[in-house]
Amino acid sequence: MNDRAYALFEEQQKARGIDVEQVKARLKALRIETPSWGYGDSGTRFKVFKKVGVPRNPYEKFEDAAQVHKLTGLCPSVAIHIPWDKVEDYGKLRTHAESLGLKIGAVNPNLFQEDEYMLGSVTNADPAVRRKATGHLLECVDIAKETGSRDLSLWFADGTNYPGQGDIRKRKAWMLEALAEMYKAMAPDMRMLIEYKFFEPGFYHTDLADWGMALGYALKLGPQAEVLVDTGHHAQGTNIEHIVAYLIDEKRLGGFHFNSRKYADDDLIVGSANPYELFLIFYQILNAAGDSDADIRRTVDNIAYMIDQSHNIEPKIPAMIRSVLNVQTQYAKALLIDHAEVEAAQRRGDVLGAEDAVRKAFEFDVTPLLHAVREEEGLPLDPMKAYLDSSYGKDIMARGKGGASW
Amino acid sequence: MNDRAYALFEEQQKARGIDVEQVKARLKALRIETPSWGYGDSGTRFKVFKKVGVPRNPYEKFEDAAQVHKLTGLCPSVAIHIPWDKVEDYGKLRTHAESLGLKIGAVNPNLFQEDEYMLGSVTNADPAVRRKATGHLLECVDIAKETGSRDLSLWFADGTNYPGQGDIRKRKAWMLEALAEMYKAMAPDMRMLIEYKFFEPGFYHTDLADWGMALGYALKLGPQAEVLVDTGHHAQGTNIEHIVAYLIDEKRLGGFHFNSRKYADDDLIVGSANPYELFLIFYQILNAAGDSDADIRRTVDNIAYMIDQSHNIEPKIPAMIRSVLNVQTQYAKALLIDHAEVEAAQRRGDVLGAEDAVRKAFEFDVTPLLHAVREEEGLPLDPMKAYLDSSYGKDIMARGKGGASW
Amino acid sequence: MNDRAYALFEEQQKARGIDVEQVKARLKALRIETPSWGYGDSGTRFKVFKKVGVPRNPYEKFEDAAQVHKLTGLCPSVAIHIPWDKVEDYGKLRTHAESLGLKIGAVNPNLFQEDEYMLGSVTNADPAVRRKATGHLLECVDIAKETGSRDLSLWFADGTNYPGQGDIRKRKAWMLEALAEMYKAMAPDMRMLIEYKFFEPGFYHTDLADWGMALGYALKLGPQAEVLVDTGHHAQGTNIEHIVAYLIDEKRLGGFHFNSRKYADDDLIVGSANPYELFLIFYQILNAAGDSDADIRRTVDNIAYMIDQSHNIEPKIPAMIRSVLNVQTQYAKALLIDHAEVEAAQRRGDVLGAEDAVRKAFEFDVTPLLHAVREEEGLPLDPMKAYLDSSYGKDIMARGKGGASW
Amino acid sequence: MNDRAYALFEEQQKARGIDVEQVKARLKALRIETPSWGYGDSGTRFKVFKKVGVPRNPYEKFEDAAQVHKLTGLCPSVAIHIPWDKVEDYGKLRTHAESLGLKIGAVNPNLFQEDEYMLGSVTNADPAVRRKATGHLLECVDIAKETGSRDLSLWFADGTNYPGQGDIRKRKAWMLEALAEMYKAMAPDMRMLIEYKFFEPGFYHTDLADWGMALGYALKLGPQAEVLVDTGHHAQGTNIEHIVAYLIDEKRLGGFHFNSRKYADDDLIVGSANPYELFLIFYQILNAAGDSDADIRRTVDNIAYMIDQSHNIEPKIPAMIRSVLNVQTQYAKALLIDHAEVEAAQRRGDVLGAEDAVRKAFEFDVTPLLHAVREEEGLPLDPMKAYLDSSYGKDIMARGKGGASW
Repeated sequence: MNDRAYALFEEQQKARGIDVEQVKARLKALRIETPSWGYGDSGTRFKVFKKVGVPRNPYEKFEDAAQVHKLTGLCPSVAIHIPWDKVEDYGKLRTHAESLGLKIGAVNPNLFQEDEYMLGSVTNADPAVRRKATGHLLECVDIAKETGSRDLSLWFADGTNYPGQGDIRKRKAWMLEALAEMYKAMAPDMRMLIEYKFFEPGFYHTDLADWGMALGYALKLGPQAEVLVDTGHHAQGTNIEHIVAYLIDEKRLGGFHFNSRKYADDDLIVGSANPYELFLIFYQILNAAGDSDADIRRTVDNIAYMIDQSHNIEPKIPAMIRSVLNVQTQYAKALLIDHAEVEAAQRRGDVLGAEDAVRKAFEFDVTPLLHAVREEEGLPLDPMKAYLDSSYGKDIMARGKGGASW
Repeated sequence: MNDRAYALFEEQQKARGIDVEQVKARLKALRIETPSWGYGDSGTRFKVFKKVGVPRNPYEKFEDAAQVHKLTGLCPSVAIHIPWDKVEDYGKLRTHAESLGLKIGAVNPNLFQEDEYMLGSVTNADPAVRRKATGHLLECVDIAKETGSRDLSLWFADGTNYPGQGDIRKRKAWMLEALAEMYKAMAPDMRMLIEYKFFEPGFYHTDLADWGMALGYALKLGPQAEVLVDTGHHAQGTNIEHIVAYLIDEKRLGGFHFNSRKYADDDLIVGSANPYELFLIFYQILNAAGDSDADIRRTVDNIAYMIDQSHNIEPKIPAMIRSVLNVQTQYAKALLIDHAEVEAAQRRGDVLGAEDAVRKAFEFDVTPLLHAVREEEGLPLDPMKAYLDSSYGKDIMARGKGGASW
Repeated sequence: MNDRAYALFEEQQKARGIDVEQVKARLKALRIETPSWGYGDSGTRFKVFKKVGVPRNPYEKFEDAAQVHKLTGLCPSVAIHIPWDKVEDYGKLRTHAESLGLKIGAVNPNLFQEDEYMLGSVTNADPAVRRKATGHLLECVDIAKETGSRDLSLWFADGTNYPGQGDIRKRKAWMLEALAEMYKAMAPDMRMLIEYKFFEPGFYHTDLADWGMALGYALKLGPQAEVLVDTGHHAQGTNIEHIVAYLIDEKRLGGFHFNSRKYADDDLIVGSANPYELFLIFYQILNAAGDSDADIRRTVDNIAYMIDQSHNIEPKIPAMIRSVLNVQTQYAKALLIDHAEVEAAQRRGDVLGAEDAVRKAFEFDVTPLLHAVREEEGLPLDPMKAYLDSSYGKDIMARGKGGASW
Repeated sequence: MNDRAYALFEEQQKARGIDVEQVKARLKALRIETPSWGYGDSGTRFKVFKKVGVPRNPYEKFEDAAQVHKLTGLCPSVAIHIPWDKVEDYGKLRTHAESLGLKIGAVNPNLFQEDEYMLGSVTNADPAVRRKATGHLLECVDIAKETGSRDLSLWFADGTNYPGQGDIRKRKAWMLEALAEMYKAMAPDMRMLIEYKFFEPGFYHTDLADWGMALGYALKLGPQAEVLVDTGHHAQGTNIEHIVAYLIDEKRLGGFHFNSRKYADDDLIVGSANPYELFLIFYQILNAAGDSDADIRRTVDNIAYMIDQSHNIEPKIPAMIRSVLNVQTQYAKALLIDHAEVEAAQRRGDVLGAEDAVRKAFEFDVTPLLHAVREEEGLPLDPMKAYLDSSYGKDIMARGKGGASW
């Protein structure tokens, strides 16, 4: 049945003028980074439900991540969080990762879990705290050099809860100061990915509140600074794909933290709340991928796709598999958009025709296509089933409860 | 200066036809319940900043609460949370409270911090979990009987994170089943206050998502069941005062959990984000307080005003003092509305006149009025200053770090 | 290719245990009412773009609606708006409709376009205005009797723009008074469908602001009063399918006004902004369709599916075709959910399994299924293409510009 | 009573260290521009209620605006909208304005009310439409030269309703092209104020959707381009004062369109929905007004305060008076903030102290202060009462119904 399904799919797509071989090649090239912390316990402010089998150290996190990559072929790198993934010897961690077929991905500083940071880290009114925070940023640059990581991924919890609590403009200057010092320390091939967030844990103002502020810093810092879009970090109704298109056009879209949300920063499995939104993000990216401007194309090529979620109730490894499969599915659908058809409709002012040209790609079932790709790559056709059929999930139960968490 | 200020205030208000003595009487009658958990450590999902001096047990929480009451005269009762405030002997706790001039207020069951409740408490698909949860509700009824509490205040974290995760209608039936069993166990003078919440920790659906659902249960249960409005539990833009007016009109508004928010359920100090909203809530309440229907008036008289906040970065006792003062201030302003003036403008279709009649009460400075009331009550004119000038805040530092938290 | 596609689809679904014949039967039974005003000009507050070819009177609106039904087989009835569709002789309009294979659907009173209604219609402080408004409601009952319409569909623009402008509780009583009078006038087989709306054109409060208020009136009126859910009338983030499930469970879901929105009440083509939401609504409906309670099943059977949109920039007839096709597509997908599979996963607490059981139905391409259904019904396989290939769109250009609008 | 009230006020403020004379001087310097279109009929998409007495032409609009200025002393300039205020001879209009003690303020192009602009004006896929739109921008520059206007205030309705409808990045380039051509045509002392809007009338994407995009264009254009903040044009929850502080710090805040909203772009009377928000905006502005950087101070000095509202149900002139009085009130309150006190609290990490230092300024009743200022300026103490007592409102009834509207 799978073969017939694929044959039919191929025939249909060819009839539409889609180059299926190219689609498959692009699917094979898709890379999604998973985060080490996505394998550990996390929760809401009300409760962290501790799970049996959660990794007890960074080494075990990489082992779990390796399972996800082995079954999906999509996740060869793993982002780390410092100090959650602090180890004595990063060379050893790197060797461990490589032995599992992985590499260490983005390095994420953590500036929100020490008592000094209660009123801000790099934006704290106290210069000693700012110094400490900047020191941590520099430490992360050093770690990135040791781990061979290209990207430093920056999210700041800095913000205030009440009007007057902080001086917004002074904090802006302090933030720039810290970022500039970090920027100078980076190697020439490194990137600083600046993340923004609408709110939480700051409930009055967040120093880096939106893409405009993140881009503002990036422009002041230089070409190695780019913006990181977390799909859960916007106000209700925000058109995220518009921001994506805008940042690509400015050649400053560095990457994504994927997750999904219905309310605030819910950090659920990407693609589970509104799969069409994820598809539309890829539509903008793929539209730019064919741009005549080489810098635009280079920007697109260098987008780091990363998962950043909080699996509060789901088993960790299956949740990660589901996440990357959802990304792959929507990416595959977006690859079926006939951009020339869209453009022709736009040119003739055909609103419904243009909308149809985009939406119909979303309505195809890409399962036969993904099966074909997985078969050619020697991967299980159904990675989730393969995981559930394997003994890995049972074996790790031996780790017991009380593993890593934030 | 204070005397002249009050004399002028009184003269102004009398000129408007306001009965200042009645206003003062109503201010003196205002009661705001503070929650035991508001004195302990709390935080966001990212971090709980542990404070020095936080109470180590329910007894110390009552001691802190007694300070707030001593200085403001507003807070003679304290809500408790079970099991956070579980003690061997509730009689002893009650005696302790009474020795401090306090009584034990609403009893709040906690059905979200045990592992079994990960997928729901009274709405769990597993009957054994539902049984356990209902058992806890019944236990809380028993505790209320021991503590002499009138109100049982129910908030359920029950909800789901993904479509399909739970059967919405079955869970609705299970919720009713549990509430009905609890309702039957209550003494005839007790009330069940049913709280609703837009989202969190459920990120797809929350079983008790809005006032309509809370009222639906209350109507099915009987006259001792009423709705509890938490000011932070609504979608953006929701007109809370409309809901308040509606519930009063249905004679089912049982009380409030006061706090303020700009984004989600931020649980900040009430009146700090949008003081006008708090004023407008009191406008609806006070408008109903003069109703010709005795049942409406009785409903208004029985509204339980309670604080429910999460002081993540603020010192606990001052934050509570600020909270109740903010409530008092807006209540005082609302007492200055001339309802006859509003009504006359409404009758003649004078939109601007009606708006003005409401808003101008908000623009008065009620400080002289509050000073007069406090003076007559033998309270410090500035309760916050009195607290900061006292040694209490320093004395409790001896408790050290690591006190109560959720 | 179509035949092979359908054969494969059928094989796949049968392998999953889906009864494809039953699915087709239910698809054939789907009925979606289109609104007469959806064929006329509409716009935003900034501009109504007048289109050539728009119908000049109710008769022509029915002609356009007949095209949609002819090509899709889904839309045998047309809702009317009074006075927009006021005619001398409703018998004649009914005969005209029937000659086109249509019937007259829901009757919609209009209480927002006369000067008297500026400050409210049935909630106006002026009794004379309330009388006039109630009179219009009664007139619409009479019209419904003449047109043979079962449903009276009520949306009120009543609300206020400023605090104090209106007395919320008095207006609540006046609303009930008017509805009660209308209710009494209805024939025993008629239904009153009460619509609610979060905001607009009232920008401070809306008298019928949410489903809870609509249900409150319905319960007070009697069993012939039910709630009408307009998919664009909620606060951001609201879980609409939860409301749908709740109202079905209360046996008071009367129908839908379908449209889609990203921001406010955008009134765009249903299914265009977030198709998954529409699918999830049908998931709740179809889950209830299999309930053991006959009253629940009867409620589901009587849900009126209606389009209510504002095609500001789209050509009217194609926009309507696209709308009903989108509804049909998501309904078809929802018919592929294996409810037993979902339930089994729920019972064993398998969050990811339950989510997967729902989502995977959404990922099927139902085109082969819809082609099969259309073929069996003698309909064009691609109704949009059939319309664009026909001469109808050109022929109506003769009507010129300046047709019906609101 | 007024004198005693002012004496007491002055005494209180001096005791706090506030320089009351300076506060009065700054209040006297406050200027708020009213919009010509605010005097005409406007409405929602459902209905424009036509009022008796509405001006029939630009000349009469200026006459109404002159009333507002005469009574408040705050509004010496009036913004115009082209073509709504198109006249044969702008010199004549200017002379008329001057004869009334007014000058012509910002010139606002209108690019949303001609049929060609249905799918965009400067971002239309059709180069002929873009050309026409750019031509209109250039025309407005010419008009500004004739009217002696410094500011060109640009709001574009450009956006799309559906994914795929427009090419987001191409439209971005076209927008820049048009703005650049306009920019070049401006006189050296002119400013281009670029407004952004979250949504409406575009319901999928808006080309200029947020401050980040507006600033992006301004930076590319040059120092005469600045950002215009409309207080109603943000997503729910957005911290507008943060954006204000940010733009001042970037020296690119050009001005405001004031209004208030609870839901979408409700365009209600500024300060009526959440007066504290308006106060907090002025807090940021006044904090920057004392900056050591002369460019920051210059930016603050050049902020254009403008009203932009839609008075759908209110009488126009009183609504405008209320609007400017609300702005004046909140500005006066913000002038009472002791910035040194705030800063000291910030430095010592005193969250509650800093919040209190800001909020307490809001709680003062500034009526005595405003009375004193008005008295010194020879203005009526209560401008609204003075207007209602005058015959102007009755006199203009002679204009009849059906005046200017959009």
